[in-house]
Amino acid sequence: MVKHISILGSTGSIGSSALEVISLFPDRFKVVGLTACENIDKIEMQIRRFKPSIVSLANEKSAKKLKERCGNLNIEVFSGMEGLIRVSTLPEADIIVSAIAGSAGLIPTFSGVKAGKTIALANKETMVMAGEIITQEANKRGIRILPMDSEHSAIFQVMNGGRWEEVHKIILTASGGPFLKTSSEERKRATVEDALRHPNWNMGTKITIDSATLMNKGLEVIEARWLFDVSINQIEVLIHPQSIVHSMVEFRDGSVIAQMGVPDMRIPIAYALSYTERLDLIMPRLDLASVGMLTFEKPDMKKFPCLSHAYDAIREGGTLPAVLNSSNEVAVRAFLQRRIGFLDIEAIVRETMERHKVRHIDTIEDVLVADNWAREEAERVVSKIG
Amino acid sequence: MVKHISILGSTGSIGSSALEVISLFPDRFKVVGLTACENIDKIEMQIRRFKPSIVSLANEKSAKKLKERCGNLNIEVFSGMEGLIRVSTLPEADIIVSAIAGSAGLIPTFSGVKAGKTIALANKETMVMAGEIITQEANKRGIRILPMDSEHSAIFQVMNGGRWEEVHKIILTASGGPFLKTSSEERKRATVEDALRHPNWNMGTKITIDSATLMNKGLEVIEARWLFDVSINQIEVLIHPQSIVHSMVEFRDGSVIAQMGVPDMRIPIAYALSYTERLDLIMPRLDLASVGMLTFEKPDMKKFPCLSHAYDAIREGGTLPAVLNSSNEVAVRAFLQRRIGFLDIEAIVRETMERHKVRHIDTIEDVLVADNWAREEAERVVSKIG
Repeated sequence: MVKHISILGSTGSIGSSALEVISLFPDRFKVVGLTACENIDKIEMQIRRFKPSIVSLANEKSAKKLKERCGNLNIEVFSGMEGLIRVSTLPEADIIVSAIAGSAGLIPTFSGVKAGKTIALANKETMVMAGEIITQEANKRGIRILPMDSEHSAIFQVMNGGRWEEVHKIILTASGGPFLKTSSEERKRATVEDALRHPNWNMGTKITIDSATLMNKGLEVIEARWLFDVSINQIEVLIHPQSIVHSMVEFRDGSVIAQMGVPDMRIPIAYALSYTERLDLIMPRLDLASVGMLTFEKPDMKKFPCLSHAYDAIREGGTLPAVLNSSNEVAVRAFLQRRIGFLDIEAIVRETMERHKVRHIDTIEDVLVADNWAREEAERVVSKIG
Repeated sequence: MVKHISILGSTGSIGSSALEVISLFPDRFKVVGLTACENIDKIEMQIRRFKPSIVSLANEKSAKKLKERCGNLNIEVFSGMEGLIRVSTLPEADIIVSAIAGSAGLIPTFSGVKAGKTIALANKETMVMAGEIITQEANKRGIRILPMDSEHSAIFQVMNGGRWEEVHKIILTASGGPFLKTSSEERKRATVEDALRHPNWNMGTKITIDSATLMNKGLEVIEARWLFDVSINQIEVLIHPQSIVHSMVEFRDGSVIAQMGVPDMRIPIAYALSYTERLDLIMPRLDLASVGMLTFEKPDMKKFPCLSHAYDAIREGGTLPAVLNSSNEVAVRAFLQRRIGFLDIEAIVRETMERHKVRHIDTIEDVLVADNWAREEAERVVSKIG
């Protein structure tokens, strides 16, 4: 059976890799919808190659331009949130690849869940901000949320067929980013270029900065808590600079099962798309004898307070994880715009969290209110510092 | 439901560990039969503690002595092969733990299979010598052979619920033994004490010498070929001196799944006994941050020719793996008796294999004939060298 796929964020790193996997298996997958922010050239190429029936761009102006370029193709072009929701709820779509960067992915992903779509999730912000209501909604409708992050995919692959009641803990690995061994003095002076120099993975800028602060791992901890319905006390982070072991599960008998591979996102992406099968991917294989050595160490929460903030946020719960995420988005953007220093990122997140009055989340609107508040508050802190 | 268990070789390393696991879960397991070679003191203790209904010792003299000591207990005492077969075919036994060292385990294990028992297999010689007919018999009766070796248990745990047709290869790890880094000159002069100094595992003498020659890994390669019904070309060996990763499976999508743990045989033993569940074992947990580093390298087949002989034997097939195993047993015993040097072990195996006329195996008797021939031939080579 051919699976019909919509990709939210098709011109980004994950979206492009997903299309690469799809292109290798034309008998298995058919692209029905695509969305992009504003990279018209790239999405036009994707449209001509994969022939979706509907696409959406961030704004009306870009949409109009794309429509003119694709006038000869039988395709509908939309824009904005309305367009995103159209693509994520497309009746003919079986799977929605949620690969928009940041909190902008929340509403379209939630719409996909409500429309009963299988979600292949790369947008961790959806789970960080609204994990409880997303998973409730998914469970109610009996739909699957399949992880595309390498770490969550690792846990998901290891648990395939296993019993969650036998799990003692899950261990998310983290490369430690480019600043694992640098002093706080050096990190204070770190430039945008320094922070973007990730040792193993080639990713978007936002997630690369999050890897340098370990906030990315913090967000993944929160995502894991909801995705796998485990207690936060069962989730550990382990620094593993080689990024070969993508994550592990420790069972109650002391056995630890780990998923490994070369650091290539096509493996977890393909696993989510083809689940419950594994595709025959022709790509470089892991050669542990060549790798030679895998190392592991405990994360230093003092050196990387963002990880600690994430644990605090999910322990407190309610709107606090959304505030953590939104204030971090503001701070990272300010850093990329060179308005603040690298160490200011965690300070902005911390200050915004401290000022937040935590509320319980009943609806997606509660999340949006907290998100708005956190952005304004974080901007205020950025201005104060900058 | 309480599982009724017979243990062949209860006073050995694996047998004792199995009883330790059983003693922790009296609601799950009941010991019904035990066998030992000649350690009367130890088996008497085990009898008083676990109250089996039948036991067997290697010879009549020991059996008589034991009977006198246990006169007040309601227990039947047998001896020799007849006794072993009685214990392995005991009507009330659900699981037979096959933990006799060496080729002596073949006939009682085969008898257990024919009697329709689930086999918890630690005796790899059964599979090395007669893998094809053992697995045929097991398949015919629909019975399971559950591995207790840490490497095979690792593969078995990883594959739980997975699809064998998606497996690209299996990778058995090997510590490399005490001579991984020694020169051939040093290995030539190696004493029994040197060879018994295994870096990670505390095991019986025969298997410890086999670890030093890598013959143990060779036997495990052959065992894996039958246990998992994979082609010999799909089985690789990787040196991993820390013995933390117990083995791995590489899937066709490039994903590698590994089972890890502290080097403690109680984990794989418990997994086999409690399969399909995992027991809540209270024991030291793997702490990868403390371990710090895992290393991997390709095995050196020139330095450790026994591994190469094992691949040759299974590629050729028929009676040759049995000859490999039996000649190795003779050579290791001669080494332990200080009649030959360490490097003579591989030479004796090689020479015996070269002199063997390979036959097809149709019955267990064909195996026994080859085994006999190999022992006599290997003894002749030992005498020539010694």
